[in-house]
Amino acid sequence: MSARPRRLLILGEGFSHDAHYGKTMRGIIRYGPDPVVAILDSARAGETHDGIPVVGTVEEALPFEPTVAVVGVATQGGRFPPAWRALLKRSISSGLDVESGLHEFISDDPELIALAREHGVELRDLRRPPEGLSVPSGANLEVDAKIVLTVGSDCAIGKKTVAVELDLEARRRGLESVFVPTGQTGIAIAGWGIAVDAVVADFLAGAAEQLVVEGAARGGKLLFVEGQGSLVHPLYSGVTLGLMHGSAPHALVLCHRAGSTEIEGCPGHPIPPLKDLVALHERIALPRRPAKVVCLALNTADLPDDDDARAAIEVTSSETGLPADDPVRFGPAYLLDAILARL
Amino acid sequence: MSARPRRLLILGEGFSHDAHYGKTMRGIIRYGPDPVVAILDSARAGETHDGIPVVGTVEEALPFEPTVAVVGVATQGGRFPPAWRALLKRSISSGLDVESGLHEFISDDPELIALAREHGVELRDLRRPPEGLSVPSGANLEVDAKIVLTVGSDCAIGKKTVAVELDLEARRRGLESVFVPTGQTGIAIAGWGIAVDAVVADFLAGAAEQLVVEGAARGGKLLFVEGQGSLVHPLYSGVTLGLMHGSAPHALVLCHRAGSTEIEGCPGHPIPPLKDLVALHERIALPRRPAKVVCLALNTADLPDDDDARAAIEVTSSETGLPADDPVRFGPAYLLDAILARL
Repeated sequence: MSARPRRLLILGEGFSHDAHYGKTMRGIIRYGPDPVVAILDSARAGETHDGIPVVGTVEEALPFEPTVAVVGVATQGGRFPPAWRALLKRSISSGLDVESGLHEFISDDPELIALAREHGVELRDLRRPPEGLSVPSGANLEVDAKIVLTVGSDCAIGKKTVAVELDLEARRRGLESVFVPTGQTGIAIAGWGIAVDAVVADFLAGAAEQLVVEGAARGGKLLFVEGQGSLVHPLYSGVTLGLMHGSAPHALVLCHRAGSTEIEGCPGHPIPPLKDLVALHERIALPRRPAKVVCLALNTADLPDDDDARAAIEVTSSETGLPADDPVRFGPAYLLDAILARL
Repeated sequence: MSARPRRLLILGEGFSHDAHYGKTMRGIIRYGPDPVVAILDSARAGETHDGIPVVGTVEEALPFEPTVAVVGVATQGGRFPPAWRALLKRSISSGLDVESGLHEFISDDPELIALAREHGVELRDLRRPPEGLSVPSGANLEVDAKIVLTVGSDCAIGKKTVAVELDLEARRRGLESVFVPTGQTGIAIAGWGIAVDAVVADFLAGAAEQLVVEGAARGGKLLFVEGQGSLVHPLYSGVTLGLMHGSAPHALVLCHRAGSTEIEGCPGHPIPPLKDLVALHERIALPRRPAKVVCLALNTADLPDDDDARAAIEVTSSETGLPADDPVRFGPAYLLDAILARL
């Protein structure tokens, strides 16, 4: 890390409006420790987003004095759209460090490396796995903390946000709680972690084990682990199960977007009824660490009216027989109570 | 590949007797296309193994004129035991190409690279993933072939062997069948494939999709996909589920070792009753491609008496209500009939 203060320009070109692919940007704005001074998205130049100016070029961002350009999108497959190369080069030649959470590593790119050296800036890949990963040793079952994992019916529905909100609420109550980041946005927010979807597949559970061990070493007696993907997602289910078995949770929080019946971006791939999804998670939990779904976190962002949101939560709760709430809209207190009561 | 004929020296030091960690060696001896001229394992020097001489040093193997040294073990975590470095260097300096299926890549090792260049030999890593992997595109559901995946209650119980035997039997019957390799030994046997446990975790299902697409392109109307790990394995379950969803099987063959009740090497991690394991696999299959377990392959190698083996098969069949057999011991005809009847 360079010593100058971190003032972020978020590169959101083409995606800053997008609830799914812009989730990294929104996570950093909402929960990150560093000020976001501008967002770059040429189609929205001149607007503001959560009070932050949206600019059309790197040059237009410079008056806001950014020091770090952060790739604020999560593309499918984790590769840069071709037009992005010019943006990255412009950021570097403007003297900004660049941070990326994509699978395609900027710090392996000879042209970007040379340019960064020329301009004295750093390139950082948040998804680059640490050296020396391996399979679990069994230390996950020995961690002296209660472990809560967020799971879900789909990607990009709030598993990270729910874990962050629950951790914040627990710490407000004076509990020794730690948020355990498992993906690029979580790492950007917390400043540590491993992107488990970027490790060698055989070491998925091993990386998850390492994360809960570190969460406890950071003083957590209560760990909220950021979930990934979904057991029923045709693209990412392997990551979900490896994380689930490796992090050895005592309890699961099932996240779902109100009204969703199909995996986003995968036409014809249905989301099963929530009751079945609860049963599937409990059935596949390891017998050595049986975990129950203790509550549901419902993302009601698509319902403008609070009464509609409350009605959807009510239906979810009665369908599953479990406590349910939208912890972002109505606060995480009720769900944290439900979790603590069943840990 | 160099032009000289492939005559294999299998490096099995410390593991050639081991049913689990020596599985690569046994797979290559049994199903590989190239002659195995010697096995190196100093503790067993002077013995023979399946008629192949076991030697104590690389020097003792040279009279048998090997051209390729193959790492014949599958260590936990995929790293080389420290003593192995000397063996690899001795093989290289004796003029042998070296092939390895471990996660630790020999062709990335500067010292071994320099030595190989000096002696004009090649280093090949069977587990190195191809460039350009990504997430599935949906092509797995469009493959014009019937896809059969072997799954299991544990690692190292015969998922690869069962797939190979079923493919051999199908081809003997004149069917257009292809064995689809997903791990280092399968790749060594078939000469193509991707070790799905070595890819970036996000691309697990994408790699599996690519393999079934290639299996069909190689002329397969019937694909027997080599399974990996187990849904209930605390170390490797993520790989198993990613492979299952990405390869989009029409039918599953559940492999189990007779009498096993606990995951090998993981004390306290039970194997659930087979009936529950069948239900778990069918429940987690994608609704777009619902797959049933159509038969069980029972590994009875630990039962010396044929009558005991037949009795164990009978119990397995009545417990699950499914056809069962040991396709290695009694031949794959019965299980292939069962599969074809339900495809």
